[in-house]
Amino acid sequence: MPNAYSLDHTVLFYETEMTGQMGIGRLVDLLLLASEGHSDSLGVGSQEVQKLGLGWVITQHQLKVKTLPQRGQKVTVKTQAQNYNSFFCYRDFWLYDEAGQEMASMHSVFVLMDQEKRKMTRILPEVVAPFEVEKTKKVERLAQPQVPANPSNQKNYRVRFMDIDENRHVNNVHYFDWMLDSLEADFLLNHQLIEMNIVYKNEVHYGQEVTSIVQVDDSTTYHEIRCDATISCLAECKWQTR
Amino acid sequence: MPNAYSLDHTVLFYETEMTGQMGIGRLVDLLLLASEGHSDSLGVGSQEVQKLGLGWVITQHQLKVKTLPQRGQKVTVKTQAQNYNSFFCYRDFWLYDEAGQEMASMHSVFVLMDQEKRKMTRILPEVVAPFEVEKTKKVERLAQPQVPANPSNQKNYRVRFMDIDENRHVNNVHYFDWMLDSLEADFLLNHQLIEMNIVYKNEVHYGQEVTSIVQVDDSTTYHEIRCDATISCLAECKWQTR
Repeated sequence: MPNAYSLDHTVLFYETEMTGQMGIGRLVDLLLLASEGHSDSLGVGSQEVQKLGLGWVITQHQLKVKTLPQRGQKVTVKTQAQNYNSFFCYRDFWLYDEAGQEMASMHSVFVLMDQEKRKMTRILPEVVAPFEVEKTKKVERLAQPQVPANPSNQKNYRVRFMDIDENRHVNNVHYFDWMLDSLEADFLLNHQLIEMNIVYKNEVHYGQEVTSIVQVDDSTTYHEIRCDATISCLAECKWQTR
Repeated sequence: MPNAYSLDHTVLFYETEMTGQMGIGRLVDLLLLASEGHSDSLGVGSQEVQKLGLGWVITQHQLKVKTLPQRGQKVTVKTQAQNYNSFFCYRDFWLYDEAGQEMASMHSVFVLMDQEKRKMTRILPEVVAPFEVEKTKKVERLAQPQVPANPSNQKNYRVRFMDIDENRHVNNVHYFDWMLDSLEADFLLNHQLIEMNIVYKNEVHYGQEVTSIVQVDDSTTYHEIRCDATISCLAECKWQTR
């Protein structure tokens, strides 16, 4: 089935955190390895898309976590391109343990960006045709994360040279790091993430300083990454105590 | 040969930087994957060593780089435990491309730390016996990096939750990130690292703020990571223009 792809991975020592479990940003990096691999396998990888002056950009992830893998654990990622409309592509991801039990899943929204104009552009049929998925008129109306209206904490972070990839984008994992590090160790060591809804609104760039704002309401946390007056991304997380 | 071990790797999208090449911290993480794998394969991996109340800590790396791998490139890491004395273990690493050409090499010094006392302790014969390497009376006198006496720049970084591993240590890659990010993008985009000599002196901990101090002398850079009045690590790097 050209619309699906899977890969195996063994969780590495540098992908885990103080908790002994894989970090959330690392988990999402791993899931996205599968979509990158899927596109590459069909000859429409990021380098091909770049030649057209375009680049895939993620606008939203809805992540659900049952169990986080541990160091040394063998896991399988499966991904499936679902369908697309004029501007949005919808893709699902699943993480399985060695016994085939589902550990996590994610629903993501991708858009195509004109690299020069740095603006969203219509989905070009040729970059999606190899996946053999249905074009639809439907636009998914996904829940949007609430803005943290009563912040409990905020921390500043600077976008570093090594945070930027070849396409001059800040890799996803850094947004997760900025958001989650603004929660105290005490909270992170005593809670495990069960859901995250994250929306990316505006790019940040090398050298910029971002503010990570968080509101903790028991086991729900609301996050905002802001650069000057601009909201870069918003997220809403649900947690359970360990 | 029990004293040697190798592993294959394909360079992933999130291991590369704006330059299109693997980041230096990522490269060292990859090399250390091989020493971790080597120890695991002989039944003396970090979890076994931890049961003895101990942990391996790196005190020095001398890295030489000929070419840095690019995204998607297949590489092989080889590592060899060389010999050890009462307190220090010496290990070498090599990175090869698909044609067997050497891309990089590293000589590293490991010590055993008592996890509770947070102090260096004598090398226990049982953790090195499986490698079948020679015990020697010799202590290597390796060149020490110069302290940056006339800094060109300095930046502050905070140790984040996700920088810490299961053993409560700050993963090596973050020291590299703090040191290299204090160089401007202009320098990093126009120079490639050819040598790095890095010495780790004192641990840093979650939540601490470190200052990354750098002195640029043409194509040699001197680095210091300082936490309050304590020097955490020193490095000396040689670069060539791209």
